[in-house]
Amino acid sequence: MHDILIEEKILSENDAIAEANRHAFNEKGVFVINMVSSPGAGKTTLIEKMTPVLLDKLGRFAVIEGDLEGDLDAVRIAKYGVPVKQITTGKACHLDAHNIAHVLSWTLDQDARLLIIENVGNMVCPAEYDLGEDMMVTILSAAEGDDKPLKYPAIFNASSALIISKTDLAPHTDFNISTARTNALSINPELQIFETSCRNGEGIKEWCKYLCSRVLALRGPVKTNR
Amino acid sequence: MHDILIEEKILSENDAIAEANRHAFNEKGVFVINMVSSPGAGKTTLIEKMTPVLLDKLGRFAVIEGDLEGDLDAVRIAKYGVPVKQITTGKACHLDAHNIAHVLSWTLDQDARLLIIENVGNMVCPAEYDLGEDMMVTILSAAEGDDKPLKYPAIFNASSALIISKTDLAPHTDFNISTARTNALSINPELQIFETSCRNGEGIKEWCKYLCSRVLALRGPVKTNR
Repeated sequence: MHDILIEEKILSENDAIAEANRHAFNEKGVFVINMVSSPGAGKTTLIEKMTPVLLDKLGRFAVIEGDLEGDLDAVRIAKYGVPVKQITTGKACHLDAHNIAHVLSWTLDQDARLLIIENVGNMVCPAEYDLGEDMMVTILSAAEGDDKPLKYPAIFNASSALIISKTDLAPHTDFNISTARTNALSINPELQIFETSCRNGEGIKEWCKYLCSRVLALRGPVKTNR
Repeated sequence: MHDILIEEKILSENDAIAEANRHAFNEKGVFVINMVSSPGAGKTTLIEKMTPVLLDKLGRFAVIEGDLEGDLDAVRIAKYGVPVKQITTGKACHLDAHNIAHVLSWTLDQDARLLIIENVGNMVCPAEYDLGEDMMVTILSAAEGDDKPLKYPAIFNASSALIISKTDLAPHTDFNISTARTNALSINPELQIFETSCRNGEGIKEWCKYLCSRVLALRGPVKTNR
């Protein structure tokens, strides 16, 4: 019981900082997504594939990479000339609002209309830690099993979009995309679902189009003097 | 700083309970493995494929399934006539020694020489929570990326065996098994590494042979009056 009270206190403090982050992002006109998934679902590769489309549609965007250790993912993103900040969490299995608050001024200085936060690979705890984002996006790889929405419901419930990644692997596994969709929608009927493959390009443009429409709807059209 | 002290206290309490679990298992002659991985690396399917080999070599074994919600995995294992206990953790992203202590008497009553604990799918927190096992085993799917040992070092460091699963998918991905081995051994040079595929059967017997040799070395030969 004592542990539960401690956890509630931590989450309540996190929520307050997340609200302040959200206010700051909103004031500056930055739309923020929080990408969550198991390790190895393909978050970084997806961002790489999204990059040319986003640069074309939005002019500029920024990335925050969350990892336990190292900067492998940040190095990959930086190669595209995209501004990227690495947060290493040490033993912490998720980013929290405090981590984001620490790099808030850097983020606001990037003159970006979109901030993509790639969370630590974990299908459990990130569901509970609001970072101040506008949209949480879960990535579920077709190599992981179509039962995952039923086994990790909190993260599917907290998300507004689901990207089924690595659809090119589906024919080589028992993963049934239709079953995955049904299971996900049984947890969260509001989920926008996209099927993507970074190997054959399936669905990347459709997902980017949806994302950019959300950015533009909330933040207004891109200025043409870029 | 306060949070770190709380975490140290929780881990120290966990370690004490884990030591008591280990003592009880040892007294009863039960060898215990703690299987950890990302969601969807194939832990349950691996146990299903191991079942006929283990029944043949050990006569009897038991399983504990750890999940946030539901009993999908326990139902799958029970179909083989293997005694299985489901632990649902709710929001907790890992099993802890206390969870295991709760089902200790059930476990000891199973007359099993081997207990397989399938942890919650998570590559971070289970590394810190000793359950009282003899051996932690990490499963890394060939669909997840060969860089994972570098990004989630704690769990590879805490394990004494690594099972690279879904090797049949490797030709369809950028996963390089040799690179995965090198990365894993750079974190933990003592790792015993096995390459397995539950689709084509690769490596299952070799892994079971190794596991049974560990069981027999610690617990003595199987009685023939089974």
